Amino acid sequence: MSHADLSLVDAYWRAANYLSAGQIYLMDNPLLTEPLAPEHIKPRLLGHWGTTPGLNFVYAHLNRVIRERDLEVLFVTGLGHGGPALLANTWLEGTYSETYPDVPRDGEGMRRLFRQFSFPGGVPSHVAPEVPGSIHEGGELGYSLAHAFGAAFDNPNLIVACVVGDGEAETGPLATSWHATKFLNPVRDGAVLPILHLNGYKIANPSLLARIPRDELDSLLRGYGYTPYYVEGDEPDAMHARMAEVLDQVVDEIARIKVRTDRPRWPMIVLRSPKGWTGPSEVDGVPVENTWRSHQVPLAGVRDNPDHLRQLEAWLRSYLPEELFDANGAPRPELSELVPDGTRRMGATPHANGGLLVRELKMPPIREHAVDVVKHGTTLSEPTRVLGRMLRDVITLNAGAADFRVFGPDETASNRLGAVFEVTGKQWQAETLPVDENLAHEGRVVEVLSEHLCQGMLEGYLLTGRHGLFNCYEAFIHIVDSMFNQHAKWLKTHQKLNWRRPIASLNYLLSSHVWRQDHNGFSHQDPGFIDHVMNKKAEVVRVYLPPDTNTLLQVADHCLRSRDYVNVIVAGKNDTPDWLSADEAALHCARGAGIWEWASNDEDEPDVVLACAGDAPTVEVLAATSLLRQHLPSLRVRVVNVVDLMRLQPDTEHPHGMPDREFDALFTTDRPVIFAYHGYPWLIHRLTYRRTNHRNLHVRGYKEEGTTTTPFDMLVLNDMDRYRLVIDVVDRVPGLGPKAARLRQLMQDQRTRHHAWIREHGEDLPEVRDWTWQ
Amino acid sequence: MSHADLSLVDAYWRAANYLSAGQIYLMDNPLLTEPLAPEHIKPRLLGHWGTTPGLNFVYAHLNRVIRERDLEVLFVTGLGHGGPALLANTWLEGTYSETYPDVPRDGEGMRRLFRQFSFPGGVPSHVAPEVPGSIHEGGELGYSLAHAFGAAFDNPNLIVACVVGDGEAETGPLATSWHATKFLNPVRDGAVLPILHLNGYKIANPSLLARIPRDELDSLLRGYGYTPYYVEGDEPDAMHARMAEVLDQVVDEIARIKVRTDRPRWPMIVLRSPKGWTGPSEVDGVPVENTWRSHQVPLAGVRDNPDHLRQLEAWLRSYLPEELFDANGAPRPELSELVPDGTRRMGATPHANGGLLVRELKMPPIREHAVDVVKHGTTLSEPTRVLGRMLRDVITLNAGAADFRVFGPDETASNRLGAVFEVTGKQWQAETLPVDENLAHEGRVVEVLSEHLCQGMLEGYLLTGRHGLFNCYEAFIHIVDSMFNQHAKWLKTHQKLNWRRPIASLNYLLSSHVWRQDHNGFSHQDPGFIDHVMNKKAEVVRVYLPPDTNTLLQVADHCLRSRDYVNVIVAGKNDTPDWLSADEAALHCARGAGIWEWASNDEDEPDVVLACAGDAPTVEVLAATSLLRQHLPSLRVRVVNVVDLMRLQPDTEHPHGMPDREFDALFTTDRPVIFAYHGYPWLIHRLTYRRTNHRNLHVRGYKEEGTTTTPFDMLVLNDMDRYRLVIDVVDRVPGLGPKAARLRQLMQDQRTRHHAWIREHGEDLPEVRDWTWQ
Repeated sequence: MSHADLSLVDAYWRAANYLSAGQIYLMDNPLLTEPLAPEHIKPRLLGHWGTTPGLNFVYAHLNRVIRERDLEVLFVTGLGHGGPALLANTWLEGTYSETYPDVPRDGEGMRRLFRQFSFPGGVPSHVAPEVPGSIHEGGELGYSLAHAFGAAFDNPNLIVACVVGDGEAETGPLATSWHATKFLNPVRDGAVLPILHLNGYKIANPSLLARIPRDELDSLLRGYGYTPYYVEGDEPDAMHARMAEVLDQVVDEIARIKVRTDRPRWPMIVLRSPKGWTGPSEVDGVPVENTWRSHQVPLAGVRDNPDHLRQLEAWLRSYLPEELFDANGAPRPELSELVPDGTRRMGATPHANGGLLVRELKMPPIREHAVDVVKHGTTLSEPTRVLGRMLRDVITLNAGAADFRVFGPDETASNRLGAVFEVTGKQWQAETLPVDENLAHEGRVVEVLSEHLCQGMLEGYLLTGRHGLFNCYEAFIHIVDSMFNQHAKWLKTHQKLNWRRPIASLNYLLSSHVWRQDHNGFSHQDPGFIDHVMNKKAEVVRVYLPPDTNTLLQVADHCLRSRDYVNVIVAGKNDTPDWLSADEAALHCARGAGIWEWASNDEDEPDVVLACAGDAPTVEVLAATSLLRQHLPSLRVRVVNVVDLMRLQPDTEHPHGMPDREFDALFTTDRPVIFAYHGYPWLIHRLTYRRTNHRNLHVRGYKEEGTTTTPFDMLVLNDMDRYRLVIDVVDRVPGLGPKAARLRQLMQDQRTRHHAWIREHGEDLPEVRDWTWQ
Repeated sequence: MSHADLSLVDAYWRAANYLSAGQIYLMDNPLLTEPLAPEHIKPRLLGHWGTTPGLNFVYAHLNRVIRERDLEVLFVTGLGHGGPALLANTWLEGTYSETYPDVPRDGEGMRRLFRQFSFPGGVPSHVAPEVPGSIHEGGELGYSLAHAFGAAFDNPNLIVACVVGDGEAETGPLATSWHATKFLNPVRDGAVLPILHLNGYKIANPSLLARIPRDELDSLLRGYGYTPYYVEGDEPDAMHARMAEVLDQVVDEIARIKVRTDRPRWPMIVLRSPKGWTGPSEVDGVPVENTWRSHQVPLAGVRDNPDHLRQLEAWLRSYLPEELFDANGAPRPELSELVPDGTRRMGATPHANGGLLVRELKMPPIREHAVDVVKHGTTLSEPTRVLGRMLRDVITLNAGAADFRVFGPDETASNRLGAVFEVTGKQWQAETLPVDENLAHEGRVVEVLSEHLCQGMLEGYLLTGRHGLFNCYEAFIHIVDSMFNQHAKWLKTHQKLNWRRPIASLNYLLSSHVWRQDHNGFSHQDPGFIDHVMNKKAEVVRVYLPPDTNTLLQVADHCLRSRDYVNVIVAGKNDTPDWLSADEAALHCARGAGIWEWASNDEDEPDVVLACAGDAPTVEVLAATSLLRQHLPSLRVRVVNVVDLMRLQPDTEHPHGMPDREFDALFTTDRPVIFAYHGYPWLIHRLTYRRTNHRNLHVRGYKEEGTTTTPFDMLVLNDMDRYRLVIDVVDRVPGLGPKAARLRQLMQDQRTRHHAWIREHGEDLPEVRDWTWQ
């Protein structure tokens, strides 16, 4: 590196540091054209300086290497509140003003850039959807590397530079994400360049990785499979020289790796620099730079304390703003020499605005996979197994584009999606043995026993304009509750930003669900992910409970084609009656909820409504209906099935919600409704409490009972079995006479008989196990 | 090790393997006294063989070293479905039969042991509360090491042997748990001996750590701070010799470490043995032993396939059961020579039944910390800061017993509990620098930026009979949703097992809550942990929303004294009006919900009820009440505050639930109720939909609005501010006349004025910022 080049990098860095500090403090006088006065200072000082200069340092150096080598780089800011840095850099390179013309690259623009930061109605202190070039939320920590690897998959020309904070590095999800190189294909995928920023401190503590001996850290990173390159120090010139040298080395090394077929040892950078670098070294007699005290606002009393104010002015002027910006406040032209061209600018890469790149997924005709249903509910199929065949064809049809992947924590086969392995493998670069099956250097399935990593990689993959599915046991999906939160909130903000184009939805397939606890104890089963999801904004979330194979295919087809949602599909893998033909399924799923006329005998005037949502509840409702028909043939029973849970809400609450008139038409205004639901029963009440007939609604569902038992016994223990539903009807429909009492007793006897049978035989009674609709 | 010793270990191992396989397959003929026939086989073969022989191997060898050295060892089974192994071993050592006399140590007992396994009404396939000697649920993976470290804290004489599965090792929580040695004090705490079991495969995939080069693995483990000892192979004799040698070495090393004051390099064991070791090597022509195919049931067709049946019988007989058990089915006396004495048996250690050890926590008088309240709501204090002083005294009072710890992800100071640092430090064994504050080799506070690790360590600490508190930002607590699930389910089962004694509750203090988003964007904030918690069994969960400082002290005191619950306390850290004196707070918290007479003017006949739960909602309700008094003095307003959220439920649903009569007395049967709630409003509907007056209930709460703004603006954006509440009253109370319309307009103007003000000034209007009750 020539000396001239590095002084340009340094000038750029100083400019970014100036702009970062300015955002934290200034409401006015952005160019310090007059002496700093209290009225220029924001009333509430909110923001995070500590991590910022290191980020600015990395960004400036990346610009240099991108320009010199015409690289395509996506920047991921893993540490927390790094907002000022990315806002400063995108403003400097011009992408911010192109995205937000009301914040131009001049003095007035700079004033607005400063003022909006951490200000009501402005922008957050962390990197957020509002920041051009970002795919990664800086709120909850731990997911940067997973996002980076997800972004790199199937992007062979991309380098994802991922700054990992040393606080973030303590989180579990980040700690396991290092291992993702065991999946990354050096030729077909892009490169991830982790830059571990040993900034030294978190909010109030040193970080663990900054306080272990260098050889131990080195050993750890090599153990993760990387070759670490160290850039350590606090003297800017030496640090610039070292960083430039190291970046050239690692980019060379990545180029060498990109032609290999075995698992390489990827390079990474360890940047050890002072927290709050170039900020006030001491304030009020205590050290601030290079301590946790520089985490947020190093000088807190600027508005009231003249010493702090003077210290702030000196700090800001130390960057020599007059050398960096012209009289109008625009960055001086020489700074532009470091800025890459057009979409090579990290704030302008289309990979960070995946909607610009996303392609329509080619979908196979649903009919090709639909099961034949001659008579409702008399044949059985395994819904997810059939879906596996459809996903197989999705993979085949989109093989050329290579933009669809299935993620899962070692459960794809267990969830019976195994047909995908007819056409693809599980991507795997670690050692293989002859006994292995379905492992491949390139494959559309990624399996790792970390739901965090699955979720994070899929998010990264979607945000960069591709498609995917996360298949998971229902019980374990709560592991990513908070990751879902953050993605859903990202999507809500993203939807409001016109410059961000719609991306493919995040699709969950939850199988091996709560109604099958054959060998699990009462340990972790929980159908409450749905409850969790429904706390998020209606614009973003969708929940589907297809009752059989053909409805599952419809729902999956719809979800895979959709944009900007989180779709949750809950579907069983075990033999399930085929209730609906392909045509019926298409109609039923389009409606989202409806009367199953063929199962009802109410002739528009039901005595009772039996409603169901979910595969197991649907079987029980149909079986109960069948029992009622046999024992109380004159009782008029209506069967309602709900596929799209959001239909139950009022139309004022959710775009899928039903108007009251429609709800009343299905559920009546005055008849008892027995509702068998897949999850926690109170969710149905929450969705329907405003409806006319809510007082007559009686919901059965999972109430945290049952351990290590048969499928039917799970239903009995949670009072959702067919016999219990018949009892519910008998108890709620008036005027049934003595026949009803006898039926009630008969049902109770059946429950008792079942209980005794399974305790003796260890399996369900054949009559419930093999039941089909007659 | 003498040859004789090791053949005893081998015999013990064979016995455990025999008993494990027997559990998976046999309903009868447990001793193979007659040729194996289909009717001896369970109808549903459910269970997991793959991990079992390795676990049995470790357990047998630990027995040897425990006996020889009189060690106190707690065994943690980190991998998943390892139930058969622990059931087999505790039965062999006698602790199972002592705990469950109906499963004696004879042939009939063996038959019952086999039959109950993964059988309806029996025991799960994973390690669960039912297993003596266990503190760790084998359902959802990833938390074994965290539990182990939690158990080791303040137990200087204990060695926690923790078998880490290589599948589990891929999870994030486990991946970061290795670092916990940076907190463990070698002298004051116990030792954790991780035994990484490279079993090779998960359900359907190889495990990552089994498929990286040995030097890379070695580097990783050394990087985590351990010295790995390798026990690798498949030949039993050689493996026994090596395991015995290594165990002696690591126990010696632990003894040397236990007198050091610097951070040691702890020993650990890597056990590389075949999955399904000693099971069928091939079935139907494909390899099974040492492949993923031995994960569950290696021979699946035993009942119908005579070849499989013969193969099973040969397999079972390969352990030579006649040499291991006498004619009555009891283990032969020589096996007992390997069994440690009394409570040294791992199934009998009191550390695994913490209720046997738990001590009453000494609590300071609440009054010592209560703030003076001369007039309701006219002084301000920071609730968590005052709580910090109480916690400081809890630490002092219980210093001798050393059985109380505070865990948190770097937020204890930020949550304003900093007073604790007057008397203790943050425990830390990594490098320190002169600039550090409050770090100590021994301290009652443990901070690590992993909510998983905080939660896991606290669980381990509580389950072994100690006390603690997890303080966390509200937004990040969803990270441990699934860990909470598992602990709550463990507690429910534990409560039902008479031999398990009550343990201290798991206490969450959630602060920095959703109503303060000063510099956060719309990224991760979510008050829904409460919703998540309330899906669990009423016997286990409690949720408290203290509105001020004195109520927070009351609630915290109650929670810290309680047993067998999960308590969630949500409390702000910012200045809050002191509503209640210490006496009033005690009474109000005992009631859980009540009318605040001093704030009401309803004289038992309200026109409207203003209810609140949570600190921010309480301020708004009181401010709205004040506005109503000013503008509509004749309106009779009742103020109801709810501290204990469970009070809202019917008494049939929760032990804290109110009878309808009491609910009606508070909320009336026919007046409008405006309810301002801390979290998602629909939770209040879910809790109250059965109440008489539910149709008149109107709930305000967090509805996912607001990004980077002032505290009052958060309220405005979510329609929970005082002006909006007044408008709600005006809209719902009939007959208020033209005055009401003018008030409505005035309130609307105030909202508009506020909006304009904060956009200009960046802070709230002084009149809302500094508001107190008059």
